[in-house]
Amino acid sequence: MREVGTSARLAHFICMEIAESRARPAPVRQGQRDTGSLAERFRKTRALSLALAQPLSDADATIQSMEDASPAKWHLAHTSWFFETFLLRDRLSGYRLHDKRFPFLFNSYYEAEGQRIARFSRGLLSRPTLEEVIAFRHAVDEAMEALLGREDCAELIALGIAHEQQHQELLLTDIKHALFQNPLGPAMFASLPATAHKPGEGWSEHEGGICRIGTDFDDPGFSFDCEGPRHKVLVEPFRIANALVTNGEWDAFIADGGYETPSLWLSDGWAWVQREGIRAPLYWNEDEHFTLAGWQGRDPDAPVTHISCYEADAYAAWAGQRLPTEAEWEVSARSHDPAGGQQLDRAEAVQPAATDAMFGSGWQWTGSAYLPYPGFKAPEGAVGEYNGKFMSGQRVLKGASCATVRAHSRASYRNFFYPHQRWQFTGLRLAADA
Amino acid sequence: MREVGTSARLAHFICMEIAESRARPAPVRQGQRDTGSLAERFRKTRALSLALAQPLSDADATIQSMEDASPAKWHLAHTSWFFETFLLRDRLSGYRLHDKRFPFLFNSYYEAEGQRIARFSRGLLSRPTLEEVIAFRHAVDEAMEALLGREDCAELIALGIAHEQQHQELLLTDIKHALFQNPLGPAMFASLPATAHKPGEGWSEHEGGICRIGTDFDDPGFSFDCEGPRHKVLVEPFRIANALVTNGEWDAFIADGGYETPSLWLSDGWAWVQREGIRAPLYWNEDEHFTLAGWQGRDPDAPVTHISCYEADAYAAWAGQRLPTEAEWEVSARSHDPAGGQQLDRAEAVQPAATDAMFGSGWQWTGSAYLPYPGFKAPEGAVGEYNGKFMSGQRVLKGASCATVRAHSRASYRNFFYPHQRWQFTGLRLAADA
Amino acid sequence: MREVGTSARLAHFICMEIAESRARPAPVRQGQRDTGSLAERFRKTRALSLALAQPLSDADATIQSMEDASPAKWHLAHTSWFFETFLLRDRLSGYRLHDKRFPFLFNSYYEAEGQRIARFSRGLLSRPTLEEVIAFRHAVDEAMEALLGREDCAELIALGIAHEQQHQELLLTDIKHALFQNPLGPAMFASLPATAHKPGEGWSEHEGGICRIGTDFDDPGFSFDCEGPRHKVLVEPFRIANALVTNGEWDAFIADGGYETPSLWLSDGWAWVQREGIRAPLYWNEDEHFTLAGWQGRDPDAPVTHISCYEADAYAAWAGQRLPTEAEWEVSARSHDPAGGQQLDRAEAVQPAATDAMFGSGWQWTGSAYLPYPGFKAPEGAVGEYNGKFMSGQRVLKGASCATVRAHSRASYRNFFYPHQRWQFTGLRLAADA
Amino acid sequence: MREVGTSARLAHFICMEIAESRARPAPVRQGQRDTGSLAERFRKTRALSLALAQPLSDADATIQSMEDASPAKWHLAHTSWFFETFLLRDRLSGYRLHDKRFPFLFNSYYEAEGQRIARFSRGLLSRPTLEEVIAFRHAVDEAMEALLGREDCAELIALGIAHEQQHQELLLTDIKHALFQNPLGPAMFASLPATAHKPGEGWSEHEGGICRIGTDFDDPGFSFDCEGPRHKVLVEPFRIANALVTNGEWDAFIADGGYETPSLWLSDGWAWVQREGIRAPLYWNEDEHFTLAGWQGRDPDAPVTHISCYEADAYAAWAGQRLPTEAEWEVSARSHDPAGGQQLDRAEAVQPAATDAMFGSGWQWTGSAYLPYPGFKAPEGAVGEYNGKFMSGQRVLKGASCATVRAHSRASYRNFFYPHQRWQFTGLRLAADA
Repeated sequence: MREVGTSARLAHFICMEIAESRARPAPVRQGQRDTGSLAERFRKTRALSLALAQPLSDADATIQSMEDASPAKWHLAHTSWFFETFLLRDRLSGYRLHDKRFPFLFNSYYEAEGQRIARFSRGLLSRPTLEEVIAFRHAVDEAMEALLGREDCAELIALGIAHEQQHQELLLTDIKHALFQNPLGPAMFASLPATAHKPGEGWSEHEGGICRIGTDFDDPGFSFDCEGPRHKVLVEPFRIANALVTNGEWDAFIADGGYETPSLWLSDGWAWVQREGIRAPLYWNEDEHFTLAGWQGRDPDAPVTHISCYEADAYAAWAGQRLPTEAEWEVSARSHDPAGGQQLDRAEAVQPAATDAMFGSGWQWTGSAYLPYPGFKAPEGAVGEYNGKFMSGQRVLKGASCATVRAHSRASYRNFFYPHQRWQFTGLRLAADA
Repeated sequence: MREVGTSARLAHFICMEIAESRARPAPVRQGQRDTGSLAERFRKTRALSLALAQPLSDADATIQSMEDASPAKWHLAHTSWFFETFLLRDRLSGYRLHDKRFPFLFNSYYEAEGQRIARFSRGLLSRPTLEEVIAFRHAVDEAMEALLGREDCAELIALGIAHEQQHQELLLTDIKHALFQNPLGPAMFASLPATAHKPGEGWSEHEGGICRIGTDFDDPGFSFDCEGPRHKVLVEPFRIANALVTNGEWDAFIADGGYETPSLWLSDGWAWVQREGIRAPLYWNEDEHFTLAGWQGRDPDAPVTHISCYEADAYAAWAGQRLPTEAEWEVSARSHDPAGGQQLDRAEAVQPAATDAMFGSGWQWTGSAYLPYPGFKAPEGAVGEYNGKFMSGQRVLKGASCATVRAHSRASYRNFFYPHQRWQFTGLRLAADA
Repeated sequence: MREVGTSARLAHFICMEIAESRARPAPVRQGQRDTGSLAERFRKTRALSLALAQPLSDADATIQSMEDASPAKWHLAHTSWFFETFLLRDRLSGYRLHDKRFPFLFNSYYEAEGQRIARFSRGLLSRPTLEEVIAFRHAVDEAMEALLGREDCAELIALGIAHEQQHQELLLTDIKHALFQNPLGPAMFASLPATAHKPGEGWSEHEGGICRIGTDFDDPGFSFDCEGPRHKVLVEPFRIANALVTNGEWDAFIADGGYETPSLWLSDGWAWVQREGIRAPLYWNEDEHFTLAGWQGRDPDAPVTHISCYEADAYAAWAGQRLPTEAEWEVSARSHDPAGGQQLDRAEAVQPAATDAMFGSGWQWTGSAYLPYPGFKAPEGAVGEYNGKFMSGQRVLKGASCATVRAHSRASYRNFFYPHQRWQFTGLRLAADA
Repeated sequence: MREVGTSARLAHFICMEIAESRARPAPVRQGQRDTGSLAERFRKTRALSLALAQPLSDADATIQSMEDASPAKWHLAHTSWFFETFLLRDRLSGYRLHDKRFPFLFNSYYEAEGQRIARFSRGLLSRPTLEEVIAFRHAVDEAMEALLGREDCAELIALGIAHEQQHQELLLTDIKHALFQNPLGPAMFASLPATAHKPGEGWSEHEGGICRIGTDFDDPGFSFDCEGPRHKVLVEPFRIANALVTNGEWDAFIADGGYETPSLWLSDGWAWVQREGIRAPLYWNEDEHFTLAGWQGRDPDAPVTHISCYEADAYAAWAGQRLPTEAEWEVSARSHDPAGGQQLDRAEAVQPAATDAMFGSGWQWTGSAYLPYPGFKAPEGAVGEYNGKFMSGQRVLKGASCATVRAHSRASYRNFFYPHQRWQFTGLRLAADA
């Protein structure tokens, strides 16, 4: 399950703008977004999920194309289950469950919360219908109004919002994967906003030293547990590219036989390439790639996305460079902030424009395994389970994609996936020893 | 795929009555059914499919619960594809395909007709929507009107009707299986008509001899190719039960340790029982079973259904009897007909009431492998493919189930499934040497 | 497991002659073979197994190349376990098991005899060593001397001999498959005797009628339970080829695109061809085929072997013919016998030379499913389990291969395998309606 | 593949002593071992491999129990292939391959060296025989004499020795796994030397700071590429247990429901426990565990071994502690060395007795992913492939087991396995923040 611990999962630049422009009565206004009250942020987040699902039919919202993904309907319901379980059920006296059968259906992995449906059967839930799920959402939203102002609920509500924001990104990546299976190549959006990609140039040098990364839990604003504690790391001098690798550069890698050269690949990566017959990023055909607006031509200047960590690593080897570590990435991101990186600690603050190069173009694979930071303590209880779960064998990704909410574009954010996974908007930024 | 060769697959007694009562403008009238013109039968069959799908949402009609099954939407489209391809495209001058992408989606296995979607991806086709598929049906129906009276099309139209009738039964069994996966146990129908099952009693004795089974292609009425040619078989004296084994009798088999006694089972059957952890018929829990009207109490006097051939064979061994051969079953069915079985040769004729004991309660596993009859010649071309395909390792089932159209309740009908399959309404009737 | 029910499994013409020529002190003499006493036959059979294993190292005798096959050492031990369990343990007072851990290791599938090692773990039994297994054989042989003359043991001993003869054929086919996996292509025998294959010509016509097939258990000599009871069948006029299809004819099938033409194949067969990438019989490369004497040139006039039933059926379709039924095959074989087929009922009798065309060149796939004959009753108890087990989905093969003991070359013999299996010496003989 | 990069894999304390005591004419003498010339070390290493295999039959040396393991015979041949390929073939003028078919059989994963046998087919190579493989070894050893003194070969020879030492450990762990599959529980050794385990007590405190770990390639002595470059790390204050967790302590973990408490486990670990039905360390039954001397009672004071990283991590969570990082472990090991850790850099030097607590009792899982050190450059060519290959998702283990050669007991040594693997002698040492 993907709601583990830490990562950013619902997003802004492109997909989000479409969704927001469709949002119902009380649209999420860009200017207000990060400064609003908790209640306001709750309402906006809930409205945004609905807006994202709005182009989907009941059937679209029901299908599940692989075990890693979930149906859109499930995302809508699961995020509501979170508020119903940990807020309404536990904290609102006299609350009765909207439907007592839903917890079994819409719990994801919270062992402490009991049995749940097998993950891959989610795609068979034609009932409850999308309409019924939306009714569930409305019922939860209405009941939540009684708690939005309560001090003792604020922390959990903030967690629920962040959790839902992650699922907003997953909703988009999962439905993209599902629609891609359809030979008709159906589009979720009529078109995507035009974006002018200028390939970034050059490298930034960093002198290294003892740097501070991560965040602390008494800092203002929200962060996931795995982003802390803030701690010191020793970083050797390094340089890091100012831009992500582009589609055009990836074409050159393919043309040069990158996918057929075993020496470029991690041992596991090479086995994966051969076993799966991988020859290009996910969603590519000859000249096009599949998008949420259907099949579209590829912009050679746009960042390549939908690559696995294996592919990112092989590309870096081919280019004579390497992936940055998560510390290098974070140190680099903070260095763009004239205030010494303080502003980057909390997503609720607007990032300075200087950091635009770091966020929003794609999640960026790092060379670092996703492991707890020194001094990390797993919290207790079912919600603690949410924050304290670690897998093994996953890699950290930094930055944010076109499908990430801006609130999750913060320097300390740690996204994580297995190295073979690539249905997220994943790309790479090169680094090297200085 | 199940549209192979021969078998009866869409039905009357219970499920059909519900469907028919819901049929749109031109309802299928019981009295007219078997006497109508080909055009009339075409229109009724097409209307019945829509009526069957009427309780389903777009999402219900999209999901696919296993590789053996297909989405309801797919059944609706595939049967229309048959008429569009082999009638409209091939025989109606100037016809243009409703959507040139549909053949790829809705061809099933006709190799001669080219590429098609992988079978298990059918459940990901949220588009075209149910509404669009129904529009496809209407377009085909409308275009077909020009061919309904043409002599040179009659044989193919009759085949298309029979083909669609098979898919009507599959639509019901497949959606039942899909809804069963849902922990909510949703019902397709509000209720099922009450039926008073009286357990049949006793045995019928047959003296055997040289008997005639099967049907010939120059006989009036429709039959699938695999039902012929009519030929002689040598049958030893035997006796056959007047009724199917009941739920109550099956309870006794379970209570006596039937599922834990290896000596009762075929070698493959025992391996299947252990590998799959089988302990009861499909759809059973403690006291109930899952039906198209959701979870319902089990009538101990009703025929047991949803058993595999392995289970049927083990039960027969436990009871000290055996399964009938397909020849024994057919000889027995024909003996109920005072006219010497002539009436039973063609499904379009109404069966005499005397044969009610043979049809409509469930498909009955036989001890016979599904193999071509002596003298069988596979027809040529893509439609020939439809009729001439044989699998290996399947068993013949005789009779008809509650989900079979009455038109397919004929003595020569040969249904066939693999011995482990049990999502059809499959039961058993015992036999023994005389 | 392969010791089920009925079939012939260890053989004479070529492989057997090699083995026999190597047999230890008391060689099996051709002339005596079928006329000897039961004791003599026991001793010869036991000696022949050892002779067959003689070219094998301990390691050769240990490996297992697939779940369908067993290690040579296991065959040697399992056949001894049969005599130890059902004769020595059950009938020889005071007998103590040679090693009380062996039954767990060397029981095959006899549920009534309790737990046994997982089938695919047989290839990990480096201990007991081949030498220890041979010592086990000698101990069993020695103890068996006390029972060889006892009237009450004769039937079981005859069964044990027939059982061991089946495993002699399996030992050869299994080790062939194992050696084939080795890129070195090691040979078990230095060479194979030269054989001059003259392709048979023409067809034999049969007028059909009510014919008698199978054997009865009160007939003299040995047969497996599934060969009876003798019963009448109605056979339509047919013709059957005088010879098996040859390698050269198979080359023509390949050259004509036989493996790429879906219309020739059973539905399951076509799926198998595509899934497994089948393009030729097992053990073929460009010009050679793998034999027990390593890689050798292919004789175009020799019968093709190591084909699945799917391939046999596709070839027959390509040739415009079909496979014979088991009844047709048996009727044809008996017609070669001037004495009306009586001599063919019992394998212990020498077959007339006229039947040479039927036996010894390869097992011949038929169009008949392996099912119990009318009136068959499964015997009781663990040995009954041996005789009474039926699978589902297997096909009958008739005849005998180069690896079958001549004693199993009888008209009533029913061999059986799944239609995809082809590591036995399996070929085909064409038939057609007259 | 296991010969990757870095780790120690053949050993001393117990298993090695047995093997050494059996070594042929020129026994490996303890005193000389680490001080001998390269030629002497080559000869001793080669002799030790033979001594290890000496208790094995040809069949024992042929079997392969899982894909992770290899047959003993394969280890013996593969290590010889290394010398033949990279030394004799490439550097000895006029050398002809001992058998030109062997490279295909005994190459492991060196892509640059071309095709090789599928990994899981290794267990089917009954030929070449063990005797033939030993003859291959002798031929290689003899030819190698001409190169042992050549300066330009010294580095590759040292690598070949280290490589063979790794395979010596694997030979022992792989044969242990294979013998364990046999229900007879055969022993490789008649007995194991008695060892008196005193459970270590207490913790060592470390103040952390900027520490140096790893080794440099211009240091004297041998190390694998992945052990360098030497670099600085920032270590927070920590404490580390003086001894490994024992069998008795593990019993308490089990008794307390450790294997049934999801909150203790990594997310992937919990999935693994449930999927595989894990309830105890590998090789445990009620009171015994399987050893190279067969089934033996468990000493509660001995370190627990054959646990996966998942189990180690869950135990640490249960104990309220954590796994050490690889840096913490190495810093701790070096602190035992009065010379500041210099002596620990090279395995050829005898470790000070003070470090005995760190090595020889079992490989110790760390919390660190196996990733290249900062500044690591993969070497080029096929041998470079050997050193430069990294997987993804593996964990570092430190220390050494009872099956590791003492030469590989060095502070910088990095062993690595996937977190679910446990057929090595793997245990754990607890750590905590200070």
